[in-house]
Amino acid sequence: MVARRYNRKLMVSVIGGHSCSESERRCAESVGRVIGEEGAVLVSGGLGGTMAAASRGCREAGGNVIGIIPGENKDDANEYVEMVITTGMGYSRNTLVSGTADIVVALPGKYGTLSEIAFALNAKKPVYGFGTWDIPGVQKLSDVKELRGILRKNRS
Amino acid sequence: MVARRYNRKLMVSVIGGHSCSESERRCAESVGRVIGEEGAVLVSGGLGGTMAAASRGCREAGGNVIGIIPGENKDDANEYVEMVITTGMGYSRNTLVSGTADIVVALPGKYGTLSEIAFALNAKKPVYGFGTWDIPGVQKLSDVKELRGILRKNRS
Amino acid sequence: MVARRYNRKLMVSVIGGHSCSESERRCAESVGRVIGEEGAVLVSGGLGGTMAAASRGCREAGGNVIGIIPGENKDDANEYVEMVITTGMGYSRNTLVSGTADIVVALPGKYGTLSEIAFALNAKKPVYGFGTWDIPGVQKLSDVKELRGILRKNRS
Amino acid sequence: MVARRYNRKLMVSVIGGHSCSESERRCAESVGRVIGEEGAVLVSGGLGGTMAAASRGCREAGGNVIGIIPGENKDDANEYVEMVITTGMGYSRNTLVSGTADIVVALPGKYGTLSEIAFALNAKKPVYGFGTWDIPGVQKLSDVKELRGILRKNRS
Repeated sequence: MVARRYNRKLMVSVIGGHSCSESERRCAESVGRVIGEEGAVLVSGGLGGTMAAASRGCREAGGNVIGIIPGENKDDANEYVEMVITTGMGYSRNTLVSGTADIVVALPGKYGTLSEIAFALNAKKPVYGFGTWDIPGVQKLSDVKELRGILRKNRS
Repeated sequence: MVARRYNRKLMVSVIGGHSCSESERRCAESVGRVIGEEGAVLVSGGLGGTMAAASRGCREAGGNVIGIIPGENKDDANEYVEMVITTGMGYSRNTLVSGTADIVVALPGKYGTLSEIAFALNAKKPVYGFGTWDIPGVQKLSDVKELRGILRKNRS
Repeated sequence: MVARRYNRKLMVSVIGGHSCSESERRCAESVGRVIGEEGAVLVSGGLGGTMAAASRGCREAGGNVIGIIPGENKDDANEYVEMVITTGMGYSRNTLVSGTADIVVALPGKYGTLSEIAFALNAKKPVYGFGTWDIPGVQKLSDVKELRGILRKNRS
Repeated sequence: MVARRYNRKLMVSVIGGHSCSESERRCAESVGRVIGEEGAVLVSGGLGGTMAAASRGCREAGGNVIGIIPGENKDDANEYVEMVITTGMGYSRNTLVSGTADIVVALPGKYGTLSEIAFALNAKKPVYGFGTWDIPGVQKLSDVKELRGILRKNRS
């Protein structure tokens, strides 16, 4: 159970590549939908690919969506981001995406995603993976239903 | 008029000291209330003093409140923060508080507040001040009603 | 007297605008020369204007010069920088320029310089100013000879 | 061949754990010694374990040593660091250690080291590994002599 204060929203960071296949896109969108349906806030790096798909899923389920973008221009964020945190910090913003999470969901991605997984594990965050880097400490999920169960347990 | 995309929330950063007098606290709270009533998101450094007072005012008006905190522990955030962005970046997080804003409201504070004013002006953000540092570029306000008018103009 | 360990170099950060007048350029260069002659390391934001002039003065006096640049490309640094720290953090790197200093010398500049002054004062660094922002806590100098005396006292 | 300007020092970042075995310590120290002997600047995260051992080796060979530390207190740096960059940014400073490098040498370490490897590969830096994480893109070395050859090729 992730500790948090009364009345504070559960924050779930979705990390993954800014380009993705069609099946990865569908997976990301369903992850986002579950996050929205369960009343958590979806946090991502705010750009395209898996980030946009997850954000879209969450918004369509009525959830709140934060994008922590590398640049200073809010127009860089995908259209589904509701609240843009502009950092101007480039890839260093990856540490914020991981650090802000109560729970991390890792999707397929390249070295940027790997850096976020490493930061999350270093910060002792629970990291759940769908088809992502095989790093000790990442808990593999095979179905978004499992994710829903995890979110419910942490919401209570 | 501050540019933003359809369906993206207006972000108003409130910067000011982590300790404050009773009258400064009341001012901060009324600033936060106006932000919440006008449907904008209040962003602050997430700690005490003016940040807590403004966050409280916004929450009580039903608004969304983000706190971008210097540390990695969400318990450092004041109790009115709904969504905590943990940075672990110390005072460097000040640049994010200013950078994320569509509009900045500067309240009384010390050097930390001055750094946020400087970053906001450097990034060409509109900065409105209530009894804060007298820096060229800061537009002085004498009443929260003026702030309400500014928010309405930017919301449309 | 600034505390530091044996065998560790005194670090002097020179902050100031990336464009400057001819007399400001001369002042910056003589500041850099004194830093180099006294065996301290000159730290700056690594770009042009006062930063380049100070770096040049220091290099010509045989000193070490670090530039902490906003981008990720070392070619952004001025040609007098010997060791480039690339941050990719944009203006957030200003906090590092101030934070790394044992002593800060502030030259004329705009809001970026103001942010560095504010960060330095916030971090309780000694800040000496030549014709820069008039902020309480900045100790005004009228001559580089005064700076030499300050560096010598801190070197011992 | 890594591009750099005339008269600019080659920067070699050594990344690895803050605790290490005796044989890892010896390896780190010999890596540092080669860096110093070849006239490059050794950059690390500035703390203990492999960072201290590599810094010691470099200093003993007469080389320059920079430590980019997570905190704001220079006393956190190991005693072999000659120039301390204080960031106050916590683990986000890992991106600077990787980003500043012309060449990265990865030693054994945990998730922090993995994050630095990921950032370095993401930034397309050449990464050479001694007994570290097995990530595609890391070029394994078995002997410090190979490292010496690589540094010489890049120095010319």
